[in-house]
Amino acid sequence: VSEHLCPPLQSVVQVNFFCDYEESKGNYLVDVDGNRMLDVYTQIASIPIGYNHPALTKVMTDPKNMGTFVNRPALGMMPPEQFSEKLVNGLMAVAPKGFSRVQTMACGSCSNENAYKAIFIWYRSGVLSFFFQVPGCPDLTLLSFMGGFHGRTLGCLATTHTKAIQKLDVPSFDWPIAPFPQLRYPLDQFERENAREEARCLEEAEDLIVKWNQKGRHVAGVVIEPIQAEGGDNHASFDFYRKLRGITKKHGCAFLVDEVQTGGGSTGKFWAHEHWGLDDPADIVSFSKKMLTGGYYQKDSFQPDKPFRIFNTWLGDHTKNLLLTEVIKVIKTENLLDQAKRSGKVMLEGLYDLQDKYPHLLSKARGIGTFCAIDVKDEDTRNLLLLKARNKGVVLGGCGTQSIRFRPALVFTEHHAHLFLDIFNDAIAELK
Amino acid sequence: VSEHLCPPLQSVVQVNFFCDYEESKGNYLVDVDGNRMLDVYTQIASIPIGYNHPALTKVMTDPKNMGTFVNRPALGMMPPEQFSEKLVNGLMAVAPKGFSRVQTMACGSCSNENAYKAIFIWYRSGVLSFFFQVPGCPDLTLLSFMGGFHGRTLGCLATTHTKAIQKLDVPSFDWPIAPFPQLRYPLDQFERENAREEARCLEEAEDLIVKWNQKGRHVAGVVIEPIQAEGGDNHASFDFYRKLRGITKKHGCAFLVDEVQTGGGSTGKFWAHEHWGLDDPADIVSFSKKMLTGGYYQKDSFQPDKPFRIFNTWLGDHTKNLLLTEVIKVIKTENLLDQAKRSGKVMLEGLYDLQDKYPHLLSKARGIGTFCAIDVKDEDTRNLLLLKARNKGVVLGGCGTQSIRFRPALVFTEHHAHLFLDIFNDAIAELK
Repeated sequence: VSEHLCPPLQSVVQVNFFCDYEESKGNYLVDVDGNRMLDVYTQIASIPIGYNHPALTKVMTDPKNMGTFVNRPALGMMPPEQFSEKLVNGLMAVAPKGFSRVQTMACGSCSNENAYKAIFIWYRSGVLSFFFQVPGCPDLTLLSFMGGFHGRTLGCLATTHTKAIQKLDVPSFDWPIAPFPQLRYPLDQFERENAREEARCLEEAEDLIVKWNQKGRHVAGVVIEPIQAEGGDNHASFDFYRKLRGITKKHGCAFLVDEVQTGGGSTGKFWAHEHWGLDDPADIVSFSKKMLTGGYYQKDSFQPDKPFRIFNTWLGDHTKNLLLTEVIKVIKTENLLDQAKRSGKVMLEGLYDLQDKYPHLLSKARGIGTFCAIDVKDEDTRNLLLLKARNKGVVLGGCGTQSIRFRPALVFTEHHAHLFLDIFNDAIAELK
Repeated sequence: VSEHLCPPLQSVVQVNFFCDYEESKGNYLVDVDGNRMLDVYTQIASIPIGYNHPALTKVMTDPKNMGTFVNRPALGMMPPEQFSEKLVNGLMAVAPKGFSRVQTMACGSCSNENAYKAIFIWYRSGVLSFFFQVPGCPDLTLLSFMGGFHGRTLGCLATTHTKAIQKLDVPSFDWPIAPFPQLRYPLDQFERENAREEARCLEEAEDLIVKWNQKGRHVAGVVIEPIQAEGGDNHASFDFYRKLRGITKKHGCAFLVDEVQTGGGSTGKFWAHEHWGLDDPADIVSFSKKMLTGGYYQKDSFQPDKPFRIFNTWLGDHTKNLLLTEVIKVIKTENLLDQAKRSGKVMLEGLYDLQDKYPHLLSKARGIGTFCAIDVKDEDTRNLLLLKARNKGVVLGGCGTQSIRFRPALVFTEHHAHLFLDIFNDAIAELK
């Protein structure tokens, strides 16, 4: 892509290729040259039920919805008539257990930024109300994990620890960062040593909370992804997360689960953290991407005491709520969560086979549902493999330093999984 | 609005009323009870050419666009075929003089957050490259002004200084804040004393830059609105802004003009800062609201050296770019900038008359184009007046502590201005 083709674009280097979104369909993305590719990346994990799903086209052509599409309301002040109903049938219909409220936002970063604010406001209204008699700007902190990714705006970026280039030159908050478990895969073959590594990380996280509280820079909340996605598809056991939830409870910190990339069904449950079996639900769960709208679920106690504390002009985009309501219907009627489980099984087994076949190239096949990944021996080889796969008709994305992440839509069937594995095998074979 | 009607909404207290966006048309907003109201607030200044404009309905029903509407692309990596063309015919067609690049974002806060990042990256690549040999997270700052509003995410919030409740409990950056001129209105009657006040503020701003630079916390940029909107429609002279631009130039700071609320034509020019007559253009101009998409224009030198430094999944929403392209066509073919000048003249003259008629209630009528405001004697009376106007069929919004801001769409004609003034007069008359 030359500068000439795309003069006013901000950065053309990051453009992979231009797409024909009219011609794309289901699991297949079509580029401007007419190449039809199996999409196992789906716009960075953000296409829920494939391209041009008829249910979504129907929403967009329904004359009843036209007023919503052309007149974007300030949802916080002047919501449309059917706003509550759409939230009840849409976002609230898939709310994780324990949540009775949702706040919509325009994107993933805004969702986390505002979730952070809700946590600070909550913390000061409860735990710290005895300490701080004078209102103002407190020196509160959030604990995040090495390798975590929560967005790129300044607040989010203070909790994002993936690539140095993302943070370079940008002022940040001095907040505590705990180590994230570096596990051996497959998880079920290394349970004992993984448990030891997780215990070490949990201990360090708790130590950090205690130390930062002691020095007066209280840890108001802990933010974590169910699988560190951008950071390299790093997993931890469900037990790790249950114990971390216990630590947050013990020290009065909010527990924010960032499901921006993991949410929406690809793990085989609608929310990845539903796999954990928490006794006590999380406090806030943020989302975006496949949910089409950004936002977060919150417990009632995280509702600020006064209006306009969590607010902006648009507070999301009702057009996306209408589309999401249909997406959720499709997921339910077509049993797409079960589909993700079945396709994921084919995929992960295929990845295990490939790493057995190419042990010098591939390692650490891992995943839940279709939310899978595999490591390549080094970054250059990974990048070459991505390119080769694309030339053979499969769109993939990298993550971490040397991983490939697989992020198909929920309509990705066993057939597509087999197809993908065949092409991927051919691409790997060319590497030798 | 009861909790019952709207269970999953985050804060119901801030809801004014529910609207029927299908029935709303042009300058008239219709609520769910069928009340038809002249809208002089337009969803917090974010409806550019009135409700249900046929040009926009046409875009939304054009089958050619369906692929864009139902498949939201990751614009930074896989833009749609016609992306560049739409930016050239849309955003770039109205770019302020001196700008050859635009970066789209989803909302106003994200636009400023990323503009701030672009400034920090630029500053470290130039001015400070001698000082900092080691890459990392520098202690750079941005200078903002008391009464300024630039958004509510954590980075933006550090530069927002309007209402205390917006910042309460949220950790912030320690960055310099300069006084914004407190002028007497009408500006042309108090030129000499206003010039003195502006000189004082400019001197203090420059002092702050020098002092913060000296203590090693370099001021990478200065952010300011052409009219402080949320903060109370506070104006400064064009000369103030020209001189401020000179100061930023002298000290190597970037000059960021936040046109999120002022941009899009209501001042009678497409960008409010075009009134200033700058010899040297600003470095970055951010926008959102009436532009339908967020984003910012930037000089070439603010383009980061590497990809993925300014990035997120969606980077805006191409649906809004398509709508904006039509909005811009309508503004041009219907000469709506001239319309804003004419309607604004009627409006401001009418406001002068009203403050002469009710000097104990109203003061400081001010404005450029239809971007007008007036002060009411105190906050309670202001709020009562907003309510009375609404009951008589005019939707208005407050700003600052005791101001009313007028933010009609660009299709607001002299006729609507007269109508508004009549109703507003009746509402005021009831206050006595």
